[in-house]
Amino acid sequence: MEHVGNKIEAPKLGEPYLLTPGPLTTSIAVKEAMLKDWGSWDKDFRAVTQEIRQRLLTLLGQGHEDFDCVPMQGSGSFAVEAMLGSFIPEDGKALVLANGAYGQRSAKTMEYLGRDFVLLDKGDYLPPRGDEVAKILADDPAITHVVAIHCETSSGILNPVEEISEVTYAAGRKLLVDSMSAFGAVELQPSEVHYEAMVSSANKCIEGVPGFGFIIARKDELEAAQGNSHSLSLDVHAQWAHMNKTGQWRFTPPTHVVVAFLEALKAHEAEGNVAGRGARYTRNRDVVVAGMRELGFETLLQNRWLSPIIVTFFCPADENFVFDQFYQLMKDKGFIIYPGKLTVVDSFRVGCIGQMDEHIMQQVVTAAKESLAEMGVASAAPPSAALEERAKLAA
Amino acid sequence: MEHVGNKIEAPKLGEPYLLTPGPLTTSIAVKEAMLKDWGSWDKDFRAVTQEIRQRLLTLLGQGHEDFDCVPMQGSGSFAVEAMLGSFIPEDGKALVLANGAYGQRSAKTMEYLGRDFVLLDKGDYLPPRGDEVAKILADDPAITHVVAIHCETSSGILNPVEEISEVTYAAGRKLLVDSMSAFGAVELQPSEVHYEAMVSSANKCIEGVPGFGFIIARKDELEAAQGNSHSLSLDVHAQWAHMNKTGQWRFTPPTHVVVAFLEALKAHEAEGNVAGRGARYTRNRDVVVAGMRELGFETLLQNRWLSPIIVTFFCPADENFVFDQFYQLMKDKGFIIYPGKLTVVDSFRVGCIGQMDEHIMQQVVTAAKESLAEMGVASAAPPSAALEERAKLAA
Ligand SMILES: Cc1ncc(COP(=O)(O)O)c(C=O)c1O
Ligand SMILES: Cc1ncc(COP(=O)(O)O)c(C=O)c1O
Repeated sequence: MEHVGNKIEAPKLGEPYLLTPGPLTTSIAVKEAMLKDWGSWDKDFRAVTQEIRQRLLTLLGQGHEDFDCVPMQGSGSFAVEAMLGSFIPEDGKALVLANGAYGQRSAKTMEYLGRDFVLLDKGDYLPPRGDEVAKILADDPAITHVVAIHCETSSGILNPVEEISEVTYAAGRKLLVDSMSAFGAVELQPSEVHYEAMVSSANKCIEGVPGFGFIIARKDELEAAQGNSHSLSLDVHAQWAHMNKTGQWRFTPPTHVVVAFLEALKAHEAEGNVAGRGARYTRNRDVVVAGMRELGFETLLQNRWLSPIIVTFFCPADENFVFDQFYQLMKDKGFIIYPGKLTVVDSFRVGCIGQMDEHIMQQVVTAAKESLAEMGVASAAPPSAALEERAKLAA
Repeated sequence: MEHVGNKIEAPKLGEPYLLTPGPLTTSIAVKEAMLKDWGSWDKDFRAVTQEIRQRLLTLLGQGHEDFDCVPMQGSGSFAVEAMLGSFIPEDGKALVLANGAYGQRSAKTMEYLGRDFVLLDKGDYLPPRGDEVAKILADDPAITHVVAIHCETSSGILNPVEEISEVTYAAGRKLLVDSMSAFGAVELQPSEVHYEAMVSSANKCIEGVPGFGFIIARKDELEAAQGNSHSLSLDVHAQWAHMNKTGQWRFTPPTHVVVAFLEALKAHEAEGNVAGRGARYTRNRDVVVAGMRELGFETLLQNRWLSPIIVTFFCPADENFVFDQFYQLMKDKGFIIYPGKLTVVDSFRVGCIGQMDEHIMQQVVTAAKESLAEMGVASAAPPSAALEERAKLAA
């Protein structure tokens, strides 16, 4: 199978681009890799698993030698739960940093686990900052772990993981990172940012299809995780030990999805690994943000907080703007956008990840312009409440 | 896309048949259904999810109106864990019936959950019988649930679920069934056999590709399951409530696998649903068992206990027989067989499920004959210890 490198493949005729944060638009080569059945016990498939683990580790960058990679069946949330249940022992206590849906989900997971935690809830998007984390840790010596979201996909904000890591380790605690939507496009090199473990999944910036996630963790943490897990299926230590011993997944792997992921990893490498992938997504974001701003749309976040993953736009104040109608008009033009998750003001999101480049993003802007016209929306400017909301975030 | 009905499609040139209990050989149409990306939030995908749930329910047969179907990301073991954690409350107690690896796995899951259980361990394959279950239930009024394996795939035995159900409900307890490898080919109609819930997965007798499982449970049990689960990801009640409310999976579904599964369900219907599928698998089994016996092989189980899913054969006593070599010779001829799981004597397994018919099974027998000759194995007869072992099982 040939690798496409920087060449972006359009979906087949009539299929929309998915401007969503995964599942996303994947290459034809990735999907075609699924046209074969594999025995999960067979050595050919074991070699695929091994190569994936090795490639993911290498992608981590400088300092990856101390880590190992453990794929886990299920969606990304399953991998997050596996990480929390396996690395935070029953007598541990977590500080969960939330500024959106995924931080909240980690907190909810801790509730299910019945393990102790405190929540720093920053609302819809305001980033948890180093100084406030430092203060909480100083005030509560029982806290053993900090849980941070790398890119909080519900707003698109890139959280300041570096400063969070610094204060966490300065206070002698440990950091676990949900890098679901950022890994593969935003660097998180252990030599630069200290952490014990992070998770991501197949259908994000590596551009595979959904079906499994993976935990990348320090080997000594993996070793120490034995007996911690609340769940047989989600036991990271058991999966790791079994894989290292037998080369197999403990339970049936999503074979087709796994083989597609290897194809996606090869294309990721051909594009220049994290730097190359990140550069394309950044161009995607810059084009869609500039174009939408030109139409009068406003982003929730100031530039410094915008991730190259997904961007939140305020819905226009114009009473002719109805999101469901806008969604359908955009879909008719070949683009599936994503509803917003803000609680205070109406918004929608446009993903920058997947098999799309700046030319496609330009077409997205054109489609948005046409859709507004078809709806009879004269101005894309948001309500003043939206701008007041945004003013809470320092640039 | 056309449906193949009874027509069996060969794998592409050079690809082996998977004579394994899933992942198995799927049709080209099922795999080709994965050549498209879907937005998981979009209404087109929600319609796919809804259709799958409805079709699975209908397959349950008479009495399905009292049930609902809840798909769950992850492998089959994840679905089993979800069922146990969601339906057996913290103050419940389970009787786990084990005669092989999958019964053992359910017991281990209960251990992880920290919920009370007793294990009836029948060893490698001897079936748990109604009278012994009745006695345990009579002696221990604390037991609230019985957990049974329908087809114990590690030996291939079809356990007597009917008699287990009878004594369970006669004693006023509830039954949960792991029908992973049987559902879709062996009837388990609620009008015939009483139970609260059962699980299976995408890559077994429906002939989809792996990536999710599903729980089919009584609606009143689903209702009552709120708050029971030990795990956010594996909470059957939460997944059910969310799906019924929004039409979406709570967390990212394996979109491609799900769409492939719908294709598989259509082919299953075209083949005549459970009866038609079961009939083909039964012919597959009959042909491979007769042919292998003719070569001198012996099955672990007497006929009455043989399932149409997978058959365990004893390894020949002949010292020239080396399983790894036999495996490779069979693979070279286009057939991937499966190692055995017996603890007492050496064995291997041949699956009867997947896109194969009796003609293929005849070729399997021929390949086995040739492989024996190539290894210089004069007789396929098992050691006498194997036959003594088998004598423990009444016909
Ligand atoms: C930061 C983050 N965490 C967790 C998840 C959950 O992943 P999944 O939907 O695959 O369960 C997502 C999904 O978008 C995410 O972006
Ligand atoms: C009866 C039974 N239960 C559970 C499982 C576990 O399923 P999985 O391997 O998908 O986790 C299997 C797998 O073959 C099975 O046959």
